Amino acid sequence: MGDLPYAKWEYQAQRDCELDLAAGEILTVLERRSSGWWIGQLANGDVGEVPRTFLGDVPASGEDDEVHAQDDEYFHEYGCNTNVHHQMLKDIPRCTAYRDALRLHADKIRGGIVMDVGAGTGILSLFAAQLGAKRVFAVEASDLGEAVLPEVVQRNGFGAVVEVLHKRAEDVTAADVGRAGVDVLVSEWMGTALVFESMASSVLRVRDRFLKPDGVVLPSSASIYAAPVDVSALWAERVEFWANPKDLFGFDMVPMLQLELESSFRQPVLSHPINESNLLAAPERVCGPFDMRTVTVEEIEVREPSEHHWEVTFEKGGNCHGCVVFFDVAFDAPNPNPNPDLNANSNPNPNPN
Amino acid sequence: MGDLPYAKWEYQAQRDCELDLAAGEILTVLERRSSGWWIGQLANGDVGEVPRTFLGDVPASGEDDEVHAQDDEYFHEYGCNTNVHHQMLKDIPRCTAYRDALRLHADKIRGGIVMDVGAGTGILSLFAAQLGAKRVFAVEASDLGEAVLPEVVQRNGFGAVVEVLHKRAEDVTAADVGRAGVDVLVSEWMGTALVFESMASSVLRVRDRFLKPDGVVLPSSASIYAAPVDVSALWAERVEFWANPKDLFGFDMVPMLQLELESSFRQPVLSHPINESNLLAAPERVCGPFDMRTVTVEEIEVREPSEHHWEVTFEKGGNCHGCVVFFDVAFDAPNPNPNPDLNANSNPNPNPN
Repeated sequence: MGDLPYAKWEYQAQRDCELDLAAGEILTVLERRSSGWWIGQLANGDVGEVPRTFLGDVPASGEDDEVHAQDDEYFHEYGCNTNVHHQMLKDIPRCTAYRDALRLHADKIRGGIVMDVGAGTGILSLFAAQLGAKRVFAVEASDLGEAVLPEVVQRNGFGAVVEVLHKRAEDVTAADVGRAGVDVLVSEWMGTALVFESMASSVLRVRDRFLKPDGVVLPSSASIYAAPVDVSALWAERVEFWANPKDLFGFDMVPMLQLELESSFRQPVLSHPINESNLLAAPERVCGPFDMRTVTVEEIEVREPSEHHWEVTFEKGGNCHGCVVFFDVAFDAPNPNPNPDLNANSNPNPNPN
Repeated sequence: MGDLPYAKWEYQAQRDCELDLAAGEILTVLERRSSGWWIGQLANGDVGEVPRTFLGDVPASGEDDEVHAQDDEYFHEYGCNTNVHHQMLKDIPRCTAYRDALRLHADKIRGGIVMDVGAGTGILSLFAAQLGAKRVFAVEASDLGEAVLPEVVQRNGFGAVVEVLHKRAEDVTAADVGRAGVDVLVSEWMGTALVFESMASSVLRVRDRFLKPDGVVLPSSASIYAAPVDVSALWAERVEFWANPKDLFGFDMVPMLQLELESSFRQPVLSHPINESNLLAAPERVCGPFDMRTVTVEEIEVREPSEHHWEVTFEKGGNCHGCVVFFDVAFDAPNPNPNPDLNANSNPNPNPN
């Protein structure tokens, strides 16, 4: 079982620690990082970072094994690591947005068929069951789907309504779902900046196979936004630090500053809080909105970077250290609209100009 | 290039997410985690966690390639990720302890030969150069050793004293060091709980090859301590959380509590602060002290768990949720002793009974 993807396009290293890739070149993956920068090794032995989005699976006879090994690892993580589920349940705004969105569609859910892709602890399936669904398919491929999730469903009195499908979404069959199809497809599929480790394509493939023509997908749409930011505190902590001998026992470490600029500081920073005061311009939508009822898997696949242009008009002075990327998803109300739409987003600027 | 170690001893899974291992069984490593619990896959396809300490390298013709691939990845991390060096330099007590320890040995360093294994940004090499070393070998295999570290040395005026050896410690040759040997061997080799990702064995091998008979190793000794702890706040946050429907939109998620106990909560918690009030007994030394001048690589290799027994007498009431593990290293003064010894430790109990 190999770890041998190939480069889908040519890639020119932009930092010392990256690898140049020729289109079609095969490399060994040493480490898969959640940042999207994987550590790869070329046939000549060079080791460096490569952008995940430039890699494709080698179409060899072992491909299925390889895909399954990746999935096994992914689902093992979700089955054994309670923390990801803890974070989901502690995120009250997110859970509440889903609960309220399901309530908006209570008429369709009551007596209807719901599918929850990547059900985890089953929280969304339980919301749907509470609203009177005739049947809820809770699809969960991790170990949670084997014992924990069925037990949670039982303990909450929904054993006759919620059916746990302990398999990958791609492996759900028409025999599992029945010929009527699905009225409401709900999933918490979003990853960091929407796209990292996202399971959107799994949701779309299930939609194409099982959603009724008048079915509902929740969330209904998704967009990615970006804005230039001034993050002077982070800059001082991580970059200017290296230029201040007082912090460095009197020594000159300026070459480390250069390395920080060329290397670490060019990688995505995943956990730095950004608020309105950091923004140098109002956020703009740079991808989407994608209509989750109609968008295709091909349309959401990451393209070559050259396809994305984004022009910024700065609205205030400051130092532009990079850009913040965030997403929102919308939960549309049914038509005719009985309630205003609900939205969940991670916008640091609550009142864009 | 495979990722195929074997089980050195039989291992019985203690959690659902672990694998049973037969002695000698070969497995595929899917992910190497810093917690020491790696994700492995058996020949029958089962995926689960396995304790790193039970795995040995398969002695095959590809072994060297495998070791080098691991090293390449390790050193890539240290060359491209400025954060590890940032943390080291921001740790004033640690840096100061090293600086003061080198000062204690100023007589030996002045006009002598110093080797700094894993020099990083060169901070310890620069301390030694400031004390008048005739020659300092700064061994650094990561990319830092190629350009950044030589430039730092130059900019601080020690280009004629500090020689950067851009290679693994194991690859340093007698021709690099010269026939006189090394007077002072210094290294910041300690990992989490001393042993995780430790480079102690690299330091000991260099010591055996190059240290003069009256040479000094800094730090001079190392010990591991343990104490039972009551971590009720962490317990409430991570375990009791699952038993409180008020936090769970009214649902019963008790099966997740069971999973937390069997799974996540049994793994090492690496970043939870512990202070004296958490201790249920005074910490006891459970390994060491290892004399870094005389201990052998074999003596510090992790043994079978059954070799380690530790009996605890509880000194106060509370709930024992686990044990804290920490280490200290000591920097002995030269004999005759011109100054009291210096010590650096991570003991949460400053005044043990």
